[in-house]
Amino acid sequence: MNITIERAALLRSLGHVQSVVERRNTIPILSNVLLRAGDGELSLAATDMDLEIVETVPATVGRPGGTTAPAHTLFDIVRKLPDGSQVELDIGSDGTILTLRAGRSQFKLSCLPVEDFPQLSSGELKHNFSVAAADLRGLIDRTRFAISTEETRYYLNGIYLHAAKSKMGSLETPVLRAVATDGHRLARVEMPLPDGAEGIPGVIIPRKTVTEIRKLVDEAADRIELSMSDNKIRFGFDSVVVTSKLIDGTFPDYERVIPVGNDKVMEVDAKLFAAAVDRVATISTEKSRAVKLSLVRGALTLSATSPESGSATEELEVSYAESPLEIGFNSRYLLDITQQIEGEGAQFTLADAASPTIIRDVADSTALYVLMPMRV
Amino acid sequence: MNITIERAALLRSLGHVQSVVERRNTIPILSNVLLRAGDGELSLAATDMDLEIVETVPATVGRPGGTTAPAHTLFDIVRKLPDGSQVELDIGSDGTILTLRAGRSQFKLSCLPVEDFPQLSSGELKHNFSVAAADLRGLIDRTRFAISTEETRYYLNGIYLHAAKSKMGSLETPVLRAVATDGHRLARVEMPLPDGAEGIPGVIIPRKTVTEIRKLVDEAADRIELSMSDNKIRFGFDSVVVTSKLIDGTFPDYERVIPVGNDKVMEVDAKLFAAAVDRVATISTEKSRAVKLSLVRGALTLSATSPESGSATEELEVSYAESPLEIGFNSRYLLDITQQIEGEGAQFTLADAASPTIIRDVADSTALYVLMPMRV
Repeated sequence: MNITIERAALLRSLGHVQSVVERRNTIPILSNVLLRAGDGELSLAATDMDLEIVETVPATVGRPGGTTAPAHTLFDIVRKLPDGSQVELDIGSDGTILTLRAGRSQFKLSCLPVEDFPQLSSGELKHNFSVAAADLRGLIDRTRFAISTEETRYYLNGIYLHAAKSKMGSLETPVLRAVATDGHRLARVEMPLPDGAEGIPGVIIPRKTVTEIRKLVDEAADRIELSMSDNKIRFGFDSVVVTSKLIDGTFPDYERVIPVGNDKVMEVDAKLFAAAVDRVATISTEKSRAVKLSLVRGALTLSATSPESGSATEELEVSYAESPLEIGFNSRYLLDITQQIEGEGAQFTLADAASPTIIRDVADSTALYVLMPMRV
Repeated sequence: MNITIERAALLRSLGHVQSVVERRNTIPILSNVLLRAGDGELSLAATDMDLEIVETVPATVGRPGGTTAPAHTLFDIVRKLPDGSQVELDIGSDGTILTLRAGRSQFKLSCLPVEDFPQLSSGELKHNFSVAAADLRGLIDRTRFAISTEETRYYLNGIYLHAAKSKMGSLETPVLRAVATDGHRLARVEMPLPDGAEGIPGVIIPRKTVTEIRKLVDEAADRIELSMSDNKIRFGFDSVVVTSKLIDGTFPDYERVIPVGNDKVMEVDAKLFAAAVDRVATISTEKSRAVKLSLVRGALTLSATSPESGSATEELEVSYAESPLEIGFNSRYLLDITQQIEGEGAQFTLADAASPTIIRDVADSTALYVLMPMRV
């Protein structure tokens, strides 16, 4: 293999694929990026056995071929090369050394054979559809914060993506739905079901895949191609293909967690509310992070106390016409949710101090959040 | 005590003083900021028993008085208040609670009595002089990287500031000199001796004091007032006074470390050199960080090898007219020094592969660096 490629193009692609490579690997080849040159392009691939990114970039190919080289080292070298450099990658006939030349720099890196590199992406996946990049971003951003980090509840360590029916009175609309929960809070976001997604299985996309996809979506073209089977999902856009295993587990019946009988509605300016919660929470103990919401007609008082620090209270004008209510929440969770609210108003639908509360963006009916209260 | 003060002014001063307060304190009052109001101003003070910052800001004083309140908590609250808020601080007659009011927020913080707050700054210091803020910044920036972090060598855990004579041929100029070393590298920077500094003792300013002063100098007016005795140093500017204990130890005779017989001179573009060292060092092992410099007439080759990663070489044009020489350095240390060089050229004065090398900024004779070689 001998190719020449512009530094910026190589850096961009290496940046994408090296991100999947873990810092410590017991299997040496998982530290490497697979490089394959042919037909005017260089293909780069990296995997952790669960997630794989493959990207193709134009390159001047002098001699086709391939190898695998240390991903982080290669990325660091290319990052440190002067902007505008032409980078030459060359593998000698014995295939054990990759030589990188740029200007008056020369690097020799140990390689491992292409044949040993694990392949995840072979095979067609049954279901195929596409979504706008902005829609995928919306599904991810408004649910990922609620993904559980408890490893024992592995079936909650991802976003549950599935086809569902959204009910608006007697009207039922087919939707693509993303749900995440850690048992303390739940986020449910939906978008109109794309053509081709009617028969998809419900799948749980692992946290790491969510993180990588989210980074890539920002640089992506308008539309993302999705393919999935019962155990794999694939995202394709521009010259990048991301293939990931799915979490092999059953996502709980989340609909049962969403209360239906809550009847006390409070509406508040989302930004003012978030700022006030943040301030008052300065006083709440590091461990509980609890803030108390005290509601009377037209007014909300936020408060927190801590045996060490003291106490804090703040009043807000709200729209509330029900009987007085006191309820406590984890301030961190309240902020996580209110940060997702892009419209002016946040709507809380409450029952009592011991029951889950529904929070919605007044300006956006596609997202719904459920938050468990805490004793204060 | 009852005062009203603009949030921005309070935040700025709290930001300065809270920085001295350690996150964990066995003595509770050291977590607190001392607040004293009187005569149209609020004075804030914080200390860790070795270092004290006192700052005064204008305030509307309704009732003079004082207290001490948790510094980090108070800082966090004020930081989170809306920009433009007027902040009221009030202490009731029993003096145990500080009430902070701003807009519709109210905080109550536990206080400790003013009398328990340790005072460091009392007493006049014998030697008094002033330096330009830019000069003090120059002394600190070009030496602090060489401060030792080995706690057992406590006398190297700071910058050694003293009056000295700088020799240029037969000419001797009195200078104020800052020196720091960790045994592997040494930095010596000087400026013309300010009036009033003739008789100062040699003092070792602790790292934490250096760090705090360096932060404050960026916001400071043109000139900094310095006072010192054998065991204390004080920096005064604008409305801030920083008083610090000095390290009670003897700084080694650093002049003996600076070689005088080095006769091989190499000059190189400092920026190109630093970039090349950084690139080549990508390959050097995490532990040694070694790079090798191979000099022949007119050319420098940088190289690094690692059993795991491979090898790297890069060539640079340099001015060098002596016999060939190979010498190894810790790349991290080389970069620390070359980053201080603001001019175009770096000058290396070498003896042989086993002897310390002198590095200078060609455009600036006030700084000198000594670097120990390493075996490669």
